[in-house]
Order: sequence, then structure tokens, then C-alpha cells
Amino acid sequence: MPLYTVSHVGNLRVCVVMVGLPARGKSFISHKIVRYLSWLSIKTRVFNVSSYRREEYREQPSADFFHPDNEESKVIRDQANIDAIKDVIKWMNEEDGCVAILDGSNVTKQKRATVAQILRSNRVEPLFLESFCDDEAIVKSNILDINSTSPDYSGKPPGYALEDILTKIKYYETHYEPMDLEDEKELSFIKLINVNSQIIINKIESYLESRIAYYIMNLHIKPRYIWLSRHGESQYNLEGKIGGDADLSERGMKYARKLKDMVEKYVPNHDKLEVWTSTLRRTQQTAQFLPNPKKQWKALDELDAGSCDGLTYEEIAQRFPEDFAARDENKFEYRYRGGESYRDVIQRLEPIIMELENQENVLVITHQAVLRCIYAYFMNSPQEKSPWMSIPLHTLIRLEPRAYGTNVTRIKANIPAVSTYKEKGTSKLGESQNSAHVMAGEVITSDVANQ
Amino acid sequence: MPLYTVSHVGNLRVCVVMVGLPARGKSFISHKIVRYLSWLSIKTRVFNVSSYRREEYREQPSADFFHPDNEESKVIRDQANIDAIKDVIKWMNEEDGCVAILDGSNVTKQKRATVAQILRSNRVEPLFLESFCDDEAIVKSNILDINSTSPDYSGKPPGYALEDILTKIKYYETHYEPMDLEDEKELSFIKLINVNSQIIINKIESYLESRIAYYIMNLHIKPRYIWLSRHGESQYNLEGKIGGDADLSERGMKYARKLKDMVEKYVPNHDKLEVWTSTLRRTQQTAQFLPNPKKQWKALDELDAGSCDGLTYEEIAQRFPEDFAARDENKFEYRYRGGESYRDVIQRLEPIIMELENQENVLVITHQAVLRCIYAYFMNSPQEKSPWMSIPLHTLIRLEPRAYGTNVTRIKANIPAVSTYKEKGTSKLGESQNSAHVMAGEVITSDVANQ
Repeated sequence: MPLYTVSHVGNLRVCVVMVGLPARGKSFISHKIVRYLSWLSIKTRVFNVSSYRREEYREQPSADFFHPDNEESKVIRDQANIDAIKDVIKWMNEEDGCVAILDGSNVTKQKRATVAQILRSNRVEPLFLESFCDDEAIVKSNILDINSTSPDYSGKPPGYALEDILTKIKYYETHYEPMDLEDEKELSFIKLINVNSQIIINKIESYLESRIAYYIMNLHIKPRYIWLSRHGESQYNLEGKIGGDADLSERGMKYARKLKDMVEKYVPNHDKLEVWTSTLRRTQQTAQFLPNPKKQWKALDELDAGSCDGLTYEEIAQRFPEDFAARDENKFEYRYRGGESYRDVIQRLEPIIMELENQENVLVITHQAVLRCIYAYFMNSPQEKSPWMSIPLHTLIRLEPRAYGTNVTRIKANIPAVSTYKEKGTSKLGESQNSAHVMAGEVITSDVANQ
Repeated sequence: MPLYTVSHVGNLRVCVVMVGLPARGKSFISHKIVRYLSWLSIKTRVFNVSSYRREEYREQPSADFFHPDNEESKVIRDQANIDAIKDVIKWMNEEDGCVAILDGSNVTKQKRATVAQILRSNRVEPLFLESFCDDEAIVKSNILDINSTSPDYSGKPPGYALEDILTKIKYYETHYEPMDLEDEKELSFIKLINVNSQIIINKIESYLESRIAYYIMNLHIKPRYIWLSRHGESQYNLEGKIGGDADLSERGMKYARKLKDMVEKYVPNHDKLEVWTSTLRRTQQTAQFLPNPKKQWKALDELDAGSCDGLTYEEIAQRFPEDFAARDENKFEYRYRGGESYRDVIQRLEPIIMELENQENVLVITHQAVLRCIYAYFMNSPQEKSPWMSIPLHTLIRLEPRAYGTNVTRIKANIPAVSTYKEKGTSKLGESQNSAHVMAGEVITSDVANQ
């Protein structure tokens, strides 16, 4: 039985070269691409040019460093770009890196030509990605975001960042040459104009590059929430069995009723909310009291346990002891006989993620393994950890994607349920985690995932 | 058990309005979009404006009809456009159509503004799709294609079409206004420049529209072949069982060896061929003698028969008589208990189709139901027919996608195998279809699928 699906990227090595003035969302886009491709098991890394500068200067230089007439600093800045590219190539050669993001400004044609030439001579395909923005409202909102969240300005007095970024922008503007559809038509590039109100895609031929373009097309920066929930407790949960297509337990049904109240109470614009379920009974029963429009997705069905479907973990440990151990060893890659691995689930969830990036008001009601994968994407959590994440029953999760991370709020319904969390190396399920919180109302906890 | 997955398009109704001079591949693109979306069960139809003209004129008018000073014909042409749009709206209202393609030329800003206004006032979102092309080689090749295959010129003397199209282009050029990034920035549009060497995407917000853009991004017009084969005969095939993960039979293994010779003999550039298999043993064993790079796709695994996995059709008919009858009744929608329907398979095959559109030299070794779905896409065959298509074992299929259809060549290896074709209403498998062709060499048959 093959343990994993070979990645379908082939031998192509791509360096996404960011282009644009400060405060155009370049780092935001870079991190989103890394998150998306890493989640798909494509080895991807950001190389932040300013961090190469920082090694020279120890600290973030003030805006004067970027003054167009500052010859000394220009040499340092050019060198930082070259150093970063050298690291890109080293990483690709030595660590089999597949996609690098060169997060710099690359504002002149000459600089871009040099970068392209170095990359190509090292068998790396350059893909330029320009964020062009002349919409002042967007720039202003980006500056405020950098001001409050960017690691570049941590520890600086309030107001400092704002002033500094504005001066830096002014300096860069004096020599900024936006990517030219004529002069630079031999380069592969994506030009985003005012986020994605207009997108120009030039000379993109490989499937991987077109996929990056498609992903970026679906990104938006409007503030929004994504709502997630597992189905209510099922009969199989009570019996400790996995898989199947069981009905909700009595307590599960209680959660379904409660979910309606929770949505009304916590979801702004809940009358415009769309509810997605899997094709399995327990998610549809959980959604049944919600008056919202519903969509069933086969792609949201639980990880297929193949021959182990309908067994308890104890039965699996007895009947397939080698498989049971192998799964604990590498739960991400392990594929049940005749079933799926976490990696397989991620492949089929890709269209869901793409659509979630595009949508604004969705509640996804699905299963433990599937929720773990969706959650891992938004929280940018490393692959090998996702199969071990704890996502308890009877909890509504609110994700708030932000420029530099995702805010999470967990709202626990006050309804006890069994725990379905199995610790590594055991066949027993954990103690119920919800019963400790039996209170009059819901229990709300918050968390932030940084990128 | 839900019988089908709800389509995830929502209530959006889109009219793709084609823009461009004659011989810019507008009909080709229109038909590709229809094929792709229909295959995904999104109700889509082309409304060809020139066919509305033909109703007035009975025959294809000569180029003079399109002379810019021909006032009388201008009125007729404008009316044809309006009539076609009326039919678009009627079809959406009465038949729940989701995506219409208005295949006309719409070469002036004023005409496009009128079209947008009429559509919007009928709650249809206009998406303009311009094919702009100033590369003479591409235009010339398109003209030759129209000359030889377009229904517009059937029955005309040779050379007539060429002359006629060139005059028509000249007339249209006098008043052609390409889509303007500034003046028309309030319209949603996709502008293809020289096929897809440059693509401009303006104001595309909905998921459905971004998906159409992505699909077009992956299209290319270079001549190419796609190679398909089922795995060799398996032990389960011999026993009449479905599903499972069986090894090849002795004859199956013979086919695997023969496949290597057939690839060498029939596939041009076979040293650059990439081989895709499923994650199941029988496809990998079939590919084992090919020296080419291989990729395993979970998405290419056979339709999951759930509770019926490992049974013969006779056993299914006995154990689940109602399901057996229901499946014969609607094989496309029927989902095996705990398994998949053909519709489910199509959903998971979508990334495969997208990548196949982008690639140039691939051999896909997969399973009966999966091959039927891929084949149905390229042959533009109606959904309900695809589960009943005959795709015998031990046959290499060559698809050659062309502007107005796909040419198919079937090369039968001279190795007998059981038939796995089950006729509607019976639980018996058909007679071996290959044994009739036992000959010294391969048997080659050709076919063309018109759109």
C-alpha cells in the first residue's frame, strides 16, 4: 500500500518575485501563498529582503536609508537582494525547495531584469508579482495594519511607523517603474491593480504558476468571519466507533437546537449566512434547525477509514496492530486500507479552501479530521501537527483572517459530549473536555495564530 | 441517503458575452466553456448570434453584409443580438439556465454598454470575454480551421471561406474598439491577448466567474495528444468482482508489458511522456514497465463502491435489490451506500481535467468509471450517457482535441480480457469484446466527436 501521493509539481522551481511600493500588501500576499502551497505539501518559503538588510544594520533603518540619493545605502540594498536570491538558490539546491517568495520591492525594470537573469541561469523560473495600488483608502488601511502588527516596528513609539512608512513611500515613488506590458512582456508576471479589482496575467504557462494566479484572484481583504463546527455528538461517538453514517445522539440533537440560538446570538448578518455540510447524516441533522440556505459537499465527508470503518480504536489495535502503530507513527501520511490519509483529505479539500477564501459569510459543519485540515490551513499550522489537533464537539469556532494571522474564538455550547480525542500511542479516547465547563451560558475563549 | 450533491453555484446567473473580430477563436472558447461547465453539472448553453441572423437570411450572408456602410444590414445585425439576448433571458427564467454564452462580436463600446444594461436589468451578470489577437500566425491558423471545419461554410467551394473571412475581418476592423481598461473598468471582463500570452481580468468577484477565468487561463491551442488506458485485467475482473485493490491477472501483466511497446510505437516524443496512475495496485502494475516519470493521484482511484466493494453484480442484485435497481435507473446520480456516485467522481476529477488542459504529453492509466468521466469530458458526451459508455480493457486510447471536436483513436492490444461492461437491467457482464480481434498486431479504430 503506497503511503503517500507523489506531489504533482514535477521538477519546476519557481521564485515569486514581489514588486511594489511599501504598504501594498506584499508581505500579506507572500504569506498567504506560502500558507496555501505548504498546506498542499509544496515546499515553499518566504525570503524577506529587508531581513537581509537588518543583518547588516541590526535594526530597521529609518526612512532616510531609502532616500534615492543615498548612494551608500543603495549598494547595501542591492546587496541584500543578491544575498536573498543566493539563499533562495541554496535552499532549492540543498533542501529541494520548490517555490520561493522573494519579498522585496524590485521597483525598477533594471533590477527586475537582473533578478530574472540570475534566477534563470540557476534553473529557477521567475514569476513577478506586482501589487500596484493607487487607491488611497487601501494604502491607508494597509499602513494602519503595518503600524499595529508588523514585526518591523515592534518596540517603536506610536506614530513612528506611520511617519516612517510615508517617507519611505515618497522616496520609493521617485524611481518606481510599474511593470510594463510592452517592455517587460518577455517576463512571466501577475500584476494586481488595487488588490484584485484588475489583474494582468502575462506569459504564464505552467500549471503551478496558473494555480498561484488563481489563488491570488480569489483573495480579498474585506474583514470577515468564517464559522466552523463539528456535527453534534453521534451514536457512533457514544460507542467509540469511527466512520459510518450514524444519527445524532440525544445530546447531539440538543446541540443542533442550540446551534440555531448561537448563530442568532453571535453571527452578524446571520440572515445572509450560508451553511455547508457534508453528505453524511450527522452534519445534516446538526444543520437542520438553521433556516439558512444549505449546500452539501462530498468533499466535506469525514476521512474514509476504509476497512476500519465502523470499528473502535481498540478493535483496530487488535485486528490491525501493525497499521495501528504505523498510523500513530505518521498520522499525516498513513492511508487506511481502502481509505484515505490526511494528505488525501487535504487534496480533496482544496476547492473548499479556494471558495472559502472567496466567500464572506459561511458556516461549515463537518467532521473531526476535515475540520482539523481546514483549521490547519487558516492557522498556518505545520502539517504533521494537524492530525493531533484538539477540536472538541459542541463548539462553534469563529475564524477572523487578518493580514498577519488569524484570530480564533471558540464558543462552547453548554452541552456535554464524549471526547473523540485519541492520544498518540493509546487506543483509548480522552476524557470529556466539555463536561468541566457545565455552566449557565456558553464559554468563550480567544486565541491568535501568527504567521 | 442523499442522492446528489447540491450544485454550489447559488443563484448567480452569468452571461459570458464574447467580444472580438472574426477568426479569434470565439466559438472555440465558447464551446470549451460549455463543455467544462456542463460536465460539472452547471447548466450552460451557447447562443450563437450569427445563427439568429441566419434565420432572417436562410443562408450565411456574404462578407458585404458586414460592410460598415451597409445600414440595412446593421439593423438586422443589431436585432440578431437583441433576439439572442432575449432567448438567453427566456432560457434562464424558464429552464433555470445558469451560464449563457453570447457568441457574437460585440466590437463597439456602445454595443457592449447596451448588452450589459439589458442583462443587468434582467438580473443576469454580464461577463465580457474578449479575444484580442494581433499575431498574424494565430489568426491565419484559425482561418484555416474555420475554412475546413466550421458549419458556417459547409457546402461552399474551396477558397470561398478564406476570401470571405478576410473581407469580413477588414470590415469589422473599421469600427472595432478593443475593451478599454479605463472607459470600461466598471464592467466585469476577461481580455485574452494572443490566446493567453497575456490575460487581463477586470472586476471579477464571484467564485463562478473566477473559475471560468482560471479554466480559460489553462487552455491552449497547441496540437497535442492525450493518452488514456484502463489498467490491465485484474484478478477481481476475472472473478467479476467490483472495487478492491487486486493484482493484475496473467493476461493483465501481459498487457502491461505490451503497453511499453505500444507507447514506443505510437506515442511521438514518448521519452517526454508523463504517466499518471491511481493509488491502486492494478494501475501501478500496468505502468511498471514504462520508464517514464510517474505520478500517483488519489483522485484517479476507481469509483468507491462503499458497502458493495468486493461483491459481484449478481451478489449486489441479491443483497441490495432496491439499490441495484435504483442504480440502473439513474446511474449518474446513484451513490453507493458509504461510497460514491458518478457525479461525485466528476467533482474530484476536476483538478485532473484542469491539469490535462494545461499539459501536453500525458498517459493516464486509471479505472473504468474514472476513464468514462474523463472521456465524457473530452467527447462532450451528455452526462446521463457517460456511465454506460464502453471502454474495454487492453486498449490504448488517443485523444486529439481540436477546435470543433476531439478525434479519437483506439488501439487494441492483441491480448484477450474479460468484458466488464454490464448492460442496463441485467446483473451479467457482457461477452469479451476483445477476443474477436485476436490478430497478429494491434487493431486501430478512429472516431470523431463533434461539438
